[in-house]
Amino acid sequence: MYQVLNGMRVIECASFIAAPSCSLHLSQMGAQVIRIDPIGGGPDAGRWPLAPSGSSLYWEGLNKGKQSVAIDFASPEGRELVAQLVCAPGENGGLFVTNFPADGFLSHQRLAQRRLDLITTRVMGWADGTPAVDYTVNAAVGVPYMTGPEDDPAPVNHVLPAWDLLAGAYSAFALLAAERYRRQTGKGQEVRVPLSDMAIASLGHLGQIAEVQGGDRPKMGNTLFGAFGRDFTTADGQRLMVVAISPRQWSGLVKVLGLEDAVARVEAATGVSFDKDEGLRFTHRDALTPLVEAAIATRQRNELGAAFDASGVCWGPYRTLREGMAEEPRLVSGNGLFSAVTHPSGLTYPTPGAAGTLMQSERINATRAPVLGEHTDQILAEVLGLSTGQIGKLHDAGRVAGPKE
Amino acid sequence: MYQVLNGMRVIECASFIAAPSCSLHLSQMGAQVIRIDPIGGGPDAGRWPLAPSGSSLYWEGLNKGKQSVAIDFASPEGRELVAQLVCAPGENGGLFVTNFPADGFLSHQRLAQRRLDLITTRVMGWADGTPAVDYTVNAAVGVPYMTGPEDDPAPVNHVLPAWDLLAGAYSAFALLAAERYRRQTGKGQEVRVPLSDMAIASLGHLGQIAEVQGGDRPKMGNTLFGAFGRDFTTADGQRLMVVAISPRQWSGLVKVLGLEDAVARVEAATGVSFDKDEGLRFTHRDALTPLVEAAIATRQRNELGAAFDASGVCWGPYRTLREGMAEEPRLVSGNGLFSAVTHPSGLTYPTPGAAGTLMQSERINATRAPVLGEHTDQILAEVLGLSTGQIGKLHDAGRVAGPKE
Repeated sequence: MYQVLNGMRVIECASFIAAPSCSLHLSQMGAQVIRIDPIGGGPDAGRWPLAPSGSSLYWEGLNKGKQSVAIDFASPEGRELVAQLVCAPGENGGLFVTNFPADGFLSHQRLAQRRLDLITTRVMGWADGTPAVDYTVNAAVGVPYMTGPEDDPAPVNHVLPAWDLLAGAYSAFALLAAERYRRQTGKGQEVRVPLSDMAIASLGHLGQIAEVQGGDRPKMGNTLFGAFGRDFTTADGQRLMVVAISPRQWSGLVKVLGLEDAVARVEAATGVSFDKDEGLRFTHRDALTPLVEAAIATRQRNELGAAFDASGVCWGPYRTLREGMAEEPRLVSGNGLFSAVTHPSGLTYPTPGAAGTLMQSERINATRAPVLGEHTDQILAEVLGLSTGQIGKLHDAGRVAGPKE
Repeated sequence: MYQVLNGMRVIECASFIAAPSCSLHLSQMGAQVIRIDPIGGGPDAGRWPLAPSGSSLYWEGLNKGKQSVAIDFASPEGRELVAQLVCAPGENGGLFVTNFPADGFLSHQRLAQRRLDLITTRVMGWADGTPAVDYTVNAAVGVPYMTGPEDDPAPVNHVLPAWDLLAGAYSAFALLAAERYRRQTGKGQEVRVPLSDMAIASLGHLGQIAEVQGGDRPKMGNTLFGAFGRDFTTADGQRLMVVAISPRQWSGLVKVLGLEDAVARVEAATGVSFDKDEGLRFTHRDALTPLVEAAIATRQRNELGAAFDASGVCWGPYRTLREGMAEEPRLVSGNGLFSAVTHPSGLTYPTPGAAGTLMQSERINATRAPVLGEHTDQILAEVLGLSTGQIGKLHDAGRVAGPKE
């Protein structure tokens, strides 16, 4: 955590990954984030992975460091409280993150009647409001048909919710852009980030919309598109990802593997040079890959890795997450991003702060996730100025809830 | 494109995806982005996919709307010009995006001697400066061993450079957070976003660092982890991704497929209810999946899709990118994000603006990518105040270059 966004107050009514990760990023830079859930929890309250106690590690991960308020969303009084929190005054407030439907009780138009300069950041499925999730969006834009073994025509889903994560980070960026504009002009607005637009715009940015005019990109297993790169296995059975995009990476690879003569013979036979044009290494991969494969198959992984490092080759071992955490201290055990935090699940585990490091600012350890409703009374008093008596009546009427006893 | 960041000036010395996409996002919200490349182009100048003319569609996609300056990075005079551009005065300047080494001539410490409040946003491989790319980072954090068919133990790379894209969007967020802080305090700083930290922090946010205390998550093909979801094939051979996380999605799926009785029998046999707990649908997927599979196999895709939509089921067809663009107008042909732009490759194709939509602002069409060096003279005059004679001398000495004739 850092303190660069200290003072900023963000209200979140959201669930799952994209919108909650947007406000998580804001929180980890110092913003106060108040997550409002329905009493009993939102649709992501029990999302896997779970702790042995049954509580959601996913929820803990995406909502750590936030404050939690539980309100009865179904009642007019509850909805009124939500709207009051979203639209509470203060030049650093009026920032709302949600994935609720655009035309429902949390519509921007309706909320902005209470606070003209409100900024709503809304993650959506499709831009027209049709539901979609990461996995259906990914299927829609063709990535599963480009993924996986080339001898199997079946689509392969990615397991990483990449579009969710990307939409979350992008939404945090867009919120700050809109907030900067508000400070210059006084104007609020609604920023919509549909997962479908996030995905198709990204493929466009990568040149793939233009590329597809010439046909779909086929599956090619673990081969890197457009340069030299693939997985290889060492003599001791270790699998490595090896990538040679830059001239230095390629020349280092050839040198370490002693392939100068063999590669020169391929160059002579094909009439091209692989030194500077990474695309030619891709075009001629059927000639080059077996050379690299055979050479790596004769080497021990540790010796080879050291030689690769010394020659600027870009490579890395494949590991499972557990192996990576055990064997690569730069990931978790020796990484200043992480600190051991005890969460409401009862588990203590390495918990990441902000992914970015501010070199001239002090990094503060990540803090635990809240218990659902833990801050209900505090926020109603602090932000809405309600008295203890008023808050008690809301509890009695079932409009708000604190943490379960 | 939007104009909310108008006036902001960002200097980019970077290549490939992450850092260039950071400044692309800033540009598409209105910032002036000046990309400085070495004369002849950076290491990504020829990155695939390519146009028939041989120019890089990837470069065009990631650098559209930017201004291009070409400078001899190898000479002291060229490096001096780069530093002057990075550190040029102006309260909306002093914003630098790079993936150059942290301790080289573009080190923050060195540059900040010229401009104390400089903000450097630096994308890295590993945080210690070791090179890494998306594909090696992905191998390091275990995602390929969770991806792909469960009967094949080999790791499956994702083809989407997810960590690059995520680091790019996150860097744009972090830059704006630092810039907001600078306007409050006058302080600049360096923000470092290593791909490795982006990846492992993200897995932490998703609960997977905690989960792995209980063991690695195994491959499970296209099955959604922790809820009900998978690919299914209709009677007419169409493949669909179907997801039921929320109670409504599940009840809609059961109803549309007429599986009430069959699911009730599974519930009776197992003693659980699938209505509200999506995790139980995952635990008992071996009983549930064949029911859904058999039911979908009897239905035609169009009829089934309409019934799913009417009942709130979350689903989507698998398509290749080309099919998606042809058959789903919400992706490109009917999507206001895209406009036809003619780029330096000579190709005209649908080009996306900002992935986010600002509902109360006018969206301006995306603009073409620059030709390398197209804005060299203009920027040297405008930003550094050089005279025509001074600029001519730099050309004559080979320190700067304009576009190729």
